[in-house]
Amino acid sequence: MRAVPFPDGYTIESHAQEPRDLRRVPIHPDHWYPLAWSRELKAGKTLGTHFAGEPIVLFRTASGAVYALEDRCAHRQVPLHAGVVDGESLRCGYHGWTYDCSGQCVDVPYLGRERLPNGVRAYPCREAHGMIFVFPGNAMLAEECPLPVLDSVADKAYKTRRFGREVKCHYSFMHENLMDMNHQFLHRRQMGQMRARSLGRRRGEKSIEVDYTFARMAGKQPAGEALVFGASKNRADPSDQSVMTVRTEYPYQTLKIHSSDDSLLMDLWIVYVPLDAQQRTNRTFGLLSVKRPAVPFLLDAAWPLLVWFTERIFKEDRTIVELEQAAHDNQGADWNHEVFPVINELRDLLRECGARAVIPIREVSEV
Amino acid sequence: MRAVPFPDGYTIESHAQEPRDLRRVPIHPDHWYPLAWSRELKAGKTLGTHFAGEPIVLFRTASGAVYALEDRCAHRQVPLHAGVVDGESLRCGYHGWTYDCSGQCVDVPYLGRERLPNGVRAYPCREAHGMIFVFPGNAMLAEECPLPVLDSVADKAYKTRRFGREVKCHYSFMHENLMDMNHQFLHRRQMGQMRARSLGRRRGEKSIEVDYTFARMAGKQPAGEALVFGASKNRADPSDQSVMTVRTEYPYQTLKIHSSDDSLLMDLWIVYVPLDAQQRTNRTFGLLSVKRPAVPFLLDAAWPLLVWFTERIFKEDRTIVELEQAAHDNQGADWNHEVFPVINELRDLLRECGARAVIPIREVSEV
Amino acid sequence: MRAVPFPDGYTIESHAQEPRDLRRVPIHPDHWYPLAWSRELKAGKTLGTHFAGEPIVLFRTASGAVYALEDRCAHRQVPLHAGVVDGESLRCGYHGWTYDCSGQCVDVPYLGRERLPNGVRAYPCREAHGMIFVFPGNAMLAEECPLPVLDSVADKAYKTRRFGREVKCHYSFMHENLMDMNHQFLHRRQMGQMRARSLGRRRGEKSIEVDYTFARMAGKQPAGEALVFGASKNRADPSDQSVMTVRTEYPYQTLKIHSSDDSLLMDLWIVYVPLDAQQRTNRTFGLLSVKRPAVPFLLDAAWPLLVWFTERIFKEDRTIVELEQAAHDNQGADWNHEVFPVINELRDLLRECGARAVIPIREVSEV
Repeated sequence: MRAVPFPDGYTIESHAQEPRDLRRVPIHPDHWYPLAWSRELKAGKTLGTHFAGEPIVLFRTASGAVYALEDRCAHRQVPLHAGVVDGESLRCGYHGWTYDCSGQCVDVPYLGRERLPNGVRAYPCREAHGMIFVFPGNAMLAEECPLPVLDSVADKAYKTRRFGREVKCHYSFMHENLMDMNHQFLHRRQMGQMRARSLGRRRGEKSIEVDYTFARMAGKQPAGEALVFGASKNRADPSDQSVMTVRTEYPYQTLKIHSSDDSLLMDLWIVYVPLDAQQRTNRTFGLLSVKRPAVPFLLDAAWPLLVWFTERIFKEDRTIVELEQAAHDNQGADWNHEVFPVINELRDLLRECGARAVIPIREVSEV
Repeated sequence: MRAVPFPDGYTIESHAQEPRDLRRVPIHPDHWYPLAWSRELKAGKTLGTHFAGEPIVLFRTASGAVYALEDRCAHRQVPLHAGVVDGESLRCGYHGWTYDCSGQCVDVPYLGRERLPNGVRAYPCREAHGMIFVFPGNAMLAEECPLPVLDSVADKAYKTRRFGREVKCHYSFMHENLMDMNHQFLHRRQMGQMRARSLGRRRGEKSIEVDYTFARMAGKQPAGEALVFGASKNRADPSDQSVMTVRTEYPYQTLKIHSSDDSLLMDLWIVYVPLDAQQRTNRTFGLLSVKRPAVPFLLDAAWPLLVWFTERIFKEDRTIVELEQAAHDNQGADWNHEVFPVINELRDLLRECGARAVIPIREVSEV
Repeated sequence: MRAVPFPDGYTIESHAQEPRDLRRVPIHPDHWYPLAWSRELKAGKTLGTHFAGEPIVLFRTASGAVYALEDRCAHRQVPLHAGVVDGESLRCGYHGWTYDCSGQCVDVPYLGRERLPNGVRAYPCREAHGMIFVFPGNAMLAEECPLPVLDSVADKAYKTRRFGREVKCHYSFMHENLMDMNHQFLHRRQMGQMRARSLGRRRGEKSIEVDYTFARMAGKQPAGEALVFGASKNRADPSDQSVMTVRTEYPYQTLKIHSSDDSLLMDLWIVYVPLDAQQRTNRTFGLLSVKRPAVPFLLDAAWPLLVWFTERIFKEDRTIVELEQAAHDNQGADWNHEVFPVINELRDLLRECGARAVIPIREVSEV
């Protein structure tokens, strides 16, 4: 990992020089992606989900195990999530064709066993951290590809909030939004007048990260922010500065806040899973872990405020990235005109790590 | 008509071998299609309908006669159904251009009679069995093409229920749904565990039909089913078996249940009329005739139960065929993998009897 | 301006002979178009509008001045109308990029002033008659292009009603609707049986106008109509005839009613501003000025009736032109079959004065 000193020369890169439209780069399928929260799928039930337009049914058997199959019966392509979990198998709700957890067709009620047709595709599937992960790409690579490690979620010194929802934009807008902390102006109502200062960035083969400190330009620190970001930053005393590190480690993203004594105060892990084939909609899965303070139950008491605060911030972000996507749709191309080097490197990273294909443009209604 | 003995070898036909996508075969227009129930069109009123994307206005004059014209004024193409019935003519609601029942323009209020423009297309139109039938194809063929015969509807020994609504799928899904009685699993909540047994099929030039008996695998016969399908089938006594015959006689379909003494217990006639140019939506017109039992008024008393039961069944069928259409739209092709010979022959019949054109694919929004 | 005597020979022009589809002719951008009513934009606020698919933000500074910029931040293309008016500048709501009234970028909070990126497009913008006008075409031509003159609006002898809303059709349908007074049949419920008589038409380089008188065929004059069109026309006394003149002076339209003593009783100015790139939706801005009668406050007392009457008429017109647009969309072409020479000349004028490009056809959902 090479360190790039900061501040360096901001450069203005025109969209005309860019190699291919980042908003049309498909996410790379050879990673583990959460498709649902564990609590969404009860034993004996099915759940229909999508990854980049591929319909995938999750089902949990009576034993509690979770499996992922192509959500499309081999017979007439109706979704298997409308079917019935039967022991360790899944039975289509139309003519009763039955598939085991490997996707093999094991029963057609009106057909001899010796004549059974081929089955459906099965996806590697694992459950961890309260999420159901699926490996939508080349299944041969699943074993060697590690699940993300979320230390703070398992650590009792932290309290974790799970959040997220559908956002109508390409995943790349989400990465850029979180990494570019110069967008504090968007959250001026929640955070007052904050100014981010970028300390430096580090680029790895499949990762980029950047450090920030913050200074308050005017106003008082809101209570919600104090909870999440820690007590008020005192610019007069540089030794009291917390440092925020935002990192994209493809395809995931993290945001960590360390206090001046290097204690991890806040730890966010987040991923943006494309739903439709156009990858213009993603489902966000976020886990926000906050270190418990010395006073017991203080964090629990303040939790509703933290929930309210983070929901407000997330809603503002969601609104603006959806406006970015809408602008892209109307223009038919990415006109991004970036001046912040970190973001230009992030954009390069997302292009390099993405799938090779180009998402075809679909005509979009205007105004 | 040749008889094909059953059971014969089930074969697995891959969609790759199929000649053209059945879901893109337009219905043949040279038949009589109902476009409305008679009760929907009062004297002096208009009704805007569609056949496969063609706008057709039905209007009933004061004398009670019904006519069908192109629903598009020759002047500025606004729908004539927004106009006014005037004697035996139809007057456009915009500038008052007036058409007689043959579609000829007979008045433009601000233009001399000697300069009248051409009119609009007229369609052969007949009223029968409480339906308004239109012949949307070559009008020269209408006279020699018979209206469907519905004996049980006119027979006082039967009570008839008229039903139907818009279903968002190609008509071929409807034919396959009704003819493949192996889909009893879909209706497991209404019918319990029934197993159909196919007795044999007969193929004609423009028709195919198949006979079934049914056996109950578990549970009791629901009351609604007993009404429609007759009293419980006793497998221990083969002589007591009712036989169900499902027949497609292009473009109509029938389902008849005969008792073991060859009495016609139930008689369903049904047709699926494409509404949009893509033929991805049809309006279903069904007439279900049930033989009155010996006890007078018993059927009338039980009628609400029969209505409820058939509505439930029809709703489950509607949901599943709409899921089939949605799957086809997402895939962009028919991936059907049929193993039941009757259905493969039905599919061939629908292709052979359909119009020659191919419905162009329109891009469809995903997820 | 040449005078064409009337009545002359009505001719029937087939759509097949027409040079290009009028509904696909873009409006010419080198004119002043209102994009909002003045009252819609308060000091310190922004308003997002569109002209033919181009997003345009209007903003009013504390001084009351109004400016028009491209509604798309140069940075990430989010709409500037989601931003904040800051003195005489507009600040984007995402990262705070700031533009002055000429569209120049004057601040990026986290970037040195010497490295500021290019800004966004500015549009000539003027406020008059309670409307905010923008010149969306070649800005070099704005100075020499006059704003429309609306004498009656400024004249205290008249009372003016401002009205309008979005109408889902190409602007050409609106021009044809107002100019062809043979469509009184559409308003038969509001106006009774009226018959328009065309007296003659005059064609200019960029204008066409036609005169009408009206005769009542049956029924009494409704009170609302009497207010707008003046007291009942007495056909028995030709000297008592009012004359209505409808004029298209590209791209605007007027309708004036003069009494037999040549006094201007009613004066309507109206324009149809395309909103979407397909120009299938317009926002109508209308100013209807009615001469105050001798009795003071009579017109004010009757005003609610006039509002109700004009709203009813406008709603009927809106419904029918939207049906025309829907028919055009389904047909994919203009099948207009016009028999009234005035309208054929108007159609030629709209083609000649429109922009050279052809609006590409977008597939439209059917039925």
